[in-house]
Amino acid sequence: MDLYGKDMITICDWKKDELDKVLNLAKDVKKNRFSPKYTNLLNGKTFLMVFYNPSLRTRISFEVAMTELGGHSQFLEPSKMRVKLLEVEGETVKDSASVMNRYAHGIGIRILEDAVEKYGDGDLLLREYAKYTDIPIINMADDVYHPCQALADTMGVTEQLGDVKGKKLTMMWGYSPKMRSWCSIQSNLLISSRFGMNVTLAHPEGFDLDPNIITTCKDYASESEGSFEITHNLKEAFKGADVVYSRNWMSSRRYKIGDEVEKASYEKYRDWRCTKEFMKLTNDAYFIHPMPVDRGNEVDDEVVDSPRSIIYDIAENRLHVQKAIMILTMSK
Amino acid sequence: MDLYGKDMITICDWKKDELDKVLNLAKDVKKNRFSPKYTNLLNGKTFLMVFYNPSLRTRISFEVAMTELGGHSQFLEPSKMRVKLLEVEGETVKDSASVMNRYAHGIGIRILEDAVEKYGDGDLLLREYAKYTDIPIINMADDVYHPCQALADTMGVTEQLGDVKGKKLTMMWGYSPKMRSWCSIQSNLLISSRFGMNVTLAHPEGFDLDPNIITTCKDYASESEGSFEITHNLKEAFKGADVVYSRNWMSSRRYKIGDEVEKASYEKYRDWRCTKEFMKLTNDAYFIHPMPVDRGNEVDDEVVDSPRSIIYDIAENRLHVQKAIMILTMSK
Amino acid sequence: MDLYGKDMITICDWKKDELDKVLNLAKDVKKNRFSPKYTNLLNGKTFLMVFYNPSLRTRISFEVAMTELGGHSQFLEPSKMRVKLLEVEGETVKDSASVMNRYAHGIGIRILEDAVEKYGDGDLLLREYAKYTDIPIINMADDVYHPCQALADTMGVTEQLGDVKGKKLTMMWGYSPKMRSWCSIQSNLLISSRFGMNVTLAHPEGFDLDPNIITTCKDYASESEGSFEITHNLKEAFKGADVVYSRNWMSSRRYKIGDEVEKASYEKYRDWRCTKEFMKLTNDAYFIHPMPVDRGNEVDDEVVDSPRSIIYDIAENRLHVQKAIMILTMSK
Repeated sequence: MDLYGKDMITICDWKKDELDKVLNLAKDVKKNRFSPKYTNLLNGKTFLMVFYNPSLRTRISFEVAMTELGGHSQFLEPSKMRVKLLEVEGETVKDSASVMNRYAHGIGIRILEDAVEKYGDGDLLLREYAKYTDIPIINMADDVYHPCQALADTMGVTEQLGDVKGKKLTMMWGYSPKMRSWCSIQSNLLISSRFGMNVTLAHPEGFDLDPNIITTCKDYASESEGSFEITHNLKEAFKGADVVYSRNWMSSRRYKIGDEVEKASYEKYRDWRCTKEFMKLTNDAYFIHPMPVDRGNEVDDEVVDSPRSIIYDIAENRLHVQKAIMILTMSK
Repeated sequence: MDLYGKDMITICDWKKDELDKVLNLAKDVKKNRFSPKYTNLLNGKTFLMVFYNPSLRTRISFEVAMTELGGHSQFLEPSKMRVKLLEVEGETVKDSASVMNRYAHGIGIRILEDAVEKYGDGDLLLREYAKYTDIPIINMADDVYHPCQALADTMGVTEQLGDVKGKKLTMMWGYSPKMRSWCSIQSNLLISSRFGMNVTLAHPEGFDLDPNIITTCKDYASESEGSFEITHNLKEAFKGADVVYSRNWMSSRRYKIGDEVEKASYEKYRDWRCTKEFMKLTNDAYFIHPMPVDRGNEVDDEVVDSPRSIIYDIAENRLHVQKAIMILTMSK
Repeated sequence: MDLYGKDMITICDWKKDELDKVLNLAKDVKKNRFSPKYTNLLNGKTFLMVFYNPSLRTRISFEVAMTELGGHSQFLEPSKMRVKLLEVEGETVKDSASVMNRYAHGIGIRILEDAVEKYGDGDLLLREYAKYTDIPIINMADDVYHPCQALADTMGVTEQLGDVKGKKLTMMWGYSPKMRSWCSIQSNLLISSRFGMNVTLAHPEGFDLDPNIITTCKDYASESEGSFEITHNLKEAFKGADVVYSRNWMSSRRYKIGDEVEKASYEKYRDWRCTKEFMKLTNDAYFIHPMPVDRGNEVDDEVVDSPRSIIYDIAENRLHVQKAIMILTMSK
């Protein structure tokens, strides 16, 4: 299994046993964080982090990852660079990517929905970069996928439950005026279905996600002998859950109707909030979230600060998962 | 004396012999800057530098410090992060700090008076971070304290005078429209009093500093058998000084009256400037300043460029002092 | 030949055999990019990159260079620092440079025409820094010179042609509304003349470069037994060329007449574009360019994507040349 140079744009492009390999390596990397077997693997090598959108966890964790492997991450912001987003003013992606390919050993890109004209363009940009590079393109969150978050989620849940096959995941839309991206949600649904969980997706009407992603989730569920269902009944969704994931996401109407109308449309769903009462309906479920958490809106402090909340473990796992991906794709 | 994990928010939270330990180590670090005994102490470790306010010396010197110890500093600007200042929009400090605590081995924070609502809030933010972290929080200048500057000052003065006990320090308010922060001034007064200097603080009426700090200085002076006095007579203040520190600071009225009125109120004190003539009244005093210097206002070129000016030595000492703090608090 | 501490502001300040030494070392550095003979040469050392103007290639390549030599580059932007450009608000260059000199082992500065008041002031700033530092000042492109680009150009051309002496270089003004700087152009003309090429500079009337630079080019040509001529006849210029360099540059009128009038004046020279047809007149010439390329304006895709285009090789050579300069000037 040679993963050297392989892009990580979405987990869908990786085989199940390749994902297992990432997670197993991440587990060992976590246990032996500063062991000499890892600390010099990427000595002298550079990972370029291109941020079209800002980020706390992603930037810090990718930069720490390279430091701990002996290499270095460069923090790049396109507004300060002469880089082209497909056909915008500046330089072609072909030229930028070809040059980066000469200098670096890996490129991470973060580009969310508000940096592109329409849904899917962010992900296309990553694929455009991949066309001109031998070195791996690693998705640091685009408008469709966030594979490193999904792998960190699964790692965190596995640490508590062991094999996740047959366990129930409830993913709920949580109220928040923040109008979050789809990428973390969709990538978690994909990996959870693929790994055989019984996935229940609960959201108010009108908050449908990408239909192609949903179709893939159903296919994964059928292959993995898990299940995938969508409901608008929040209370039902909680019953028997082993894992609860509460997170806001915007509707697909947002770009037509504008931010203010979009936000206003959330108001009637203020009770879509993960509360202690809802959690009592579960199988003593673990609470997960990709952070930042909108406390009091998406979820109550009582839940997010409870012993069953593993949000900091998952945030930490971002580091270990990313180190594992970098080791597999960037070191020989 | 185990200082591993100890925060450096103000020198007041450190015992006198712990501060001595920092200064002694800094001296050795300076002498053996690239010796193998220091160059790998923080291999693979990350120091997060969170800058709410920009800085030249502080950013460069903290980043160099980690490089020279084998680790890496990340330069973070909250405007590009989703970090909360106490209760502002975004993420709670609890969540941000808890995650940073998983990734990094130390956190530096710089937050001055113009990034907060009222005096003391910047310092509170550091203490809020400290609440949620095991790793050390290092003050890179807040609205109350600047401990690394104070330690570098003392190191620089000691290099010239040996033991500073019983030596006279004259700290004067210097004219400048720049309306500087209190942190460097207050931290120098604290450490100088604690180390037994005879401190004379000279400023025009209306430029009183934090009364709590002044009280602490007096207590320190009495413990250390030094002295602490405040005068509005500049000429008197210079007499017999061994060290002169001339620096502008704003009045506490600034936030009520606004920047323009504040600045205008300085005009009548244009002669509060450290000149060659004033320096003649001293005991051939050394000139110190935390930089940047407002030449021609706070002090004349003749003084700042004279052989008795040790401002560059002190700027350099920032590096050595910070390396010493990092070694003591971040390496096992 | 001791180059330790020597500034690289322009190749004119370096002897011919010193430049040969840089190019020979760069060749070896390229062949042995991750060899232990190079990877630890600048362990623990810091290179400060001061960017008054943004850049893709320059920032990445200088930062990679230090990483690959074991050291670290700091990315500094003056807008976030309190640094003075000659006599602007803030701190004097003397004070900033003197402090940097204590912390770092080299300083790179990038400052183009739009960050200064008049042509030449950017270059003066570098010389001002050099006045107060023992460590090398490395020009990362100023308003007059871009020596690292010129060395990378020559390295690239040499890789294809061997000794460039007697080979014909055609440098043409290419149409583009981007109003590019003179630095890359002028530095290439200087090094090509110095290394004995037969240089033909072709541009529409009114796009004269710095007359001092042109004089120096002619002197170099006469010393090196090359030649240097200027023409306004583009077709003639192409005949027999071994290397073609097509690049836009602004006229010296720009600051008087403003950007809009300047740009409009380019419209009648839209056919000043490097096409496949023009290239047929050459001696199967190599195409070079400092990037970013304005495709379809300065040059057609057919040319820039052809097998004779070596633009990515030259971009890569930036890294190797810079590593060579850093090794020679920053390691003992």
